[in-house]
Amino acid sequence: MRFLTLVSLGLSAIISFGAVANELTSLAPQHQTGTSQTVPAVPKNMVIMIGDGMGPAYTTAYRYFKDNPNTQEIEQTVFDRLLVGMSSTYPARSSGYVTDSAASATALATGYKTYNGAISVDEQKQPIPTLFELARARGMATGLAVTSQVNHATPAAFMVHNEHRKNYVEIAEAYLDTGAEVILGGGQKYFSEELLEKFKAKGYQHITEFSQLDGIDKPKVLGLFDEVQLPWVIEDKQGHKLRTLTQKALDLLSQHEQGFVLLIEGSLIDWAGHSNDIASAMHEVDEFAAAMEVVEQYVREHQDTLLVATADHNTGGLSIAAGKDYAWHPEFLHHVTMPPYILAEKLVEQDEWQSSLTAAIPVEFTSEQMELIADARAQGAEPLTYALQTVIDQHSNTGWTTVGHTGLDVQVFATGPGASLFNGSQDNTDIAKKMISLLPQLPAKQQ
Amino acid sequence: MRFLTLVSLGLSAIISFGAVANELTSLAPQHQTGTSQTVPAVPKNMVIMIGDGMGPAYTTAYRYFKDNPNTQEIEQTVFDRLLVGMSSTYPARSSGYVTDSAASATALATGYKTYNGAISVDEQKQPIPTLFELARARGMATGLAVTSQVNHATPAAFMVHNEHRKNYVEIAEAYLDTGAEVILGGGQKYFSEELLEKFKAKGYQHITEFSQLDGIDKPKVLGLFDEVQLPWVIEDKQGHKLRTLTQKALDLLSQHEQGFVLLIEGSLIDWAGHSNDIASAMHEVDEFAAAMEVVEQYVREHQDTLLVATADHNTGGLSIAAGKDYAWHPEFLHHVTMPPYILAEKLVEQDEWQSSLTAAIPVEFTSEQMELIADARAQGAEPLTYALQTVIDQHSNTGWTTVGHTGLDVQVFATGPGASLFNGSQDNTDIAKKMISLLPQLPAKQQ
Repeated sequence: MRFLTLVSLGLSAIISFGAVANELTSLAPQHQTGTSQTVPAVPKNMVIMIGDGMGPAYTTAYRYFKDNPNTQEIEQTVFDRLLVGMSSTYPARSSGYVTDSAASATALATGYKTYNGAISVDEQKQPIPTLFELARARGMATGLAVTSQVNHATPAAFMVHNEHRKNYVEIAEAYLDTGAEVILGGGQKYFSEELLEKFKAKGYQHITEFSQLDGIDKPKVLGLFDEVQLPWVIEDKQGHKLRTLTQKALDLLSQHEQGFVLLIEGSLIDWAGHSNDIASAMHEVDEFAAAMEVVEQYVREHQDTLLVATADHNTGGLSIAAGKDYAWHPEFLHHVTMPPYILAEKLVEQDEWQSSLTAAIPVEFTSEQMELIADARAQGAEPLTYALQTVIDQHSNTGWTTVGHTGLDVQVFATGPGASLFNGSQDNTDIAKKMISLLPQLPAKQQ
Repeated sequence: MRFLTLVSLGLSAIISFGAVANELTSLAPQHQTGTSQTVPAVPKNMVIMIGDGMGPAYTTAYRYFKDNPNTQEIEQTVFDRLLVGMSSTYPARSSGYVTDSAASATALATGYKTYNGAISVDEQKQPIPTLFELARARGMATGLAVTSQVNHATPAAFMVHNEHRKNYVEIAEAYLDTGAEVILGGGQKYFSEELLEKFKAKGYQHITEFSQLDGIDKPKVLGLFDEVQLPWVIEDKQGHKLRTLTQKALDLLSQHEQGFVLLIEGSLIDWAGHSNDIASAMHEVDEFAAAMEVVEQYVREHQDTLLVATADHNTGGLSIAAGKDYAWHPEFLHHVTMPPYILAEKLVEQDEWQSSLTAAIPVEFTSEQMELIADARAQGAEPLTYALQTVIDQHSNTGWTTVGHTGLDVQVFATGPGASLFNGSQDNTDIAKKMISLLPQLPAKQQ
């Protein structure tokens, strides 16, 4: 009954989005490529990638973080290659101008504004049909790969409906009924043995180690690789987890004849931003960029696939320079080898903390900086975390204004059939509306 | 001799930019409009508008500053209508990743990176041909209208060459030889009586009052309406100066049969940013938006005209929210009626300062805020300025990270023939290269 309601809501959504789809179909030519392959006007598959909290300062900073200072030019990034527009992110008026990840993910998943905290429900807490549900109603496969717990706000809004993002266990349980073919990320603590048994009964292969990914060659899969979030990229020796998950998700979903919709989230960019941790943020953006390049390559090889990437909001008020100097020093950030809060927890427990500090951040600190760090260490891990962040910000000349979000517009990146629909300025709800308009017309073969 | 050098340099520039122009000419169709007017593939006229320091947080904030909270939707701005891409702003490698207005204006005027402080000279301090010079070599008219002194860094880089932006008098004197038909803005103090006589001898009408603009119905004109910059929009009772200057510049230049290139700068957006003065910044952006709407309307009526607008860099590290709250309160900013530094200068001289404060910012301050203001006032105008800014930032929940610039990419807006060349990500030098590629081919009829 609930599913029927969603499908009928979906139909009305399609009707209102119909104008966009019709316009596209009539305007977009069938492009001929160099290899005489025909590029369709509308995609068979869609990948939406979300750099959580990844406002424009993150992608700009990343260009300079990746720059080789020994060459004359500054190298382009995947963000430079694929930028097509920008997006506003404000939530429903009841929540003001600054969104949280839940309201923004709801906008991106459904095309509707809602209150901060909402997981694909409207202001009356009624479910709104999602891109994933509308895709499934057309016989398409769906999946996700994220670096947070899989039931965190952003993926949750694509998967289920809940009046609050913090209802993690309810959300995890609701995942059972989504039919999603691929669920990859963290979050073991939210999936009880009983729940995991139910997933297995529905045909899911349940894995907990990255090494097990090689053995998975067909859907369905529930891969939960950590208690909560995946390891920070900055200190992850194994490396390139999101890139690996993205490649695996594409491999699995592309087996589905009727196409797929895939969500990829660089979740921890936001978490680094909340911590005002510039070094970790750059490494998380680097991994998200690597995952984007995997999808970019997939689109080159599968010209029936659309990639749309964006951020859900801007976190931290990051700025590339601070104080008075017209300067930013990303080269320093390459010396930082772990998040300040993890380093702080180590240092407070060690008598020989100076050598651990030098091992973790092998640069010369001023005597004032060493004094700041020593004083903070005497007060505990949290003050020490702030002190380490201060010193890193001083060395790199990085600025922050908040431990929360800001209302800044975010960028939109796209490639593949339909990509030009995302050119220019738009609202985050428009991104969902456009993607929904690119789904095949109903009636489709039902699964 | 010097002019010949510039023209020959211009030729080599044209050769290297030729690929872009040829691509455009062959790709761009002659569009038919609803009124069966033919839209050319390349423009006859070009307007470049620069919001100095106007990074993406300024235009986003402006959307919410202009929002009517009593309507359900949030209204679009001219920036939303015309956004097509973004631009990197870094200067030559010798100046790091964060540009000043001179290096950035040089990039936008010439297509070349240079050191911070340079006015259209390269790192060897040799002149680089500018868009204005290349346009004049093709018989086109040139002009500018700005809210700073007319010889400030941004307009200077389009007009002349100098090894440092601070050589204001040299720069003003060099304006005499540019042949620019329209020069409108502030800067009386840099133009001696002797220099003004030389301008008149060259056929310039010299005016100093806005009321005199009505009497100017043909070029050339040198309008200097203030000692240095024009009045702050926030307290300018006369109002809409940049909009008025923009309309006048278009009226005058459009008389030129061979087309024109016009620079419009919202100069004081940057100055408000340097002062971390959010209320003044919003009013300066408002006036720049009004000027953009004038040009947008001109482009609608004259389909042979291209508008490209951008910022030269981001100032202040402005953020739309600060601290911990997911909130921004632009409605408060409408109560502020003058820049904090001007208010501070008043308040330190008045015994009954509280009533002046209430008159200037008619809102209720907390007792802590009143105490902060009173204590700062006792220390002088500068501490009081900071205190007033702090209180305004607290009320609006605005954040700043620097009194200088940041390296954040800026937006690019465009409409008219050739506008699609500016889609997506680009460098600021690319903007100049593209505009130069849109100039008519040499040989052109020389003036």
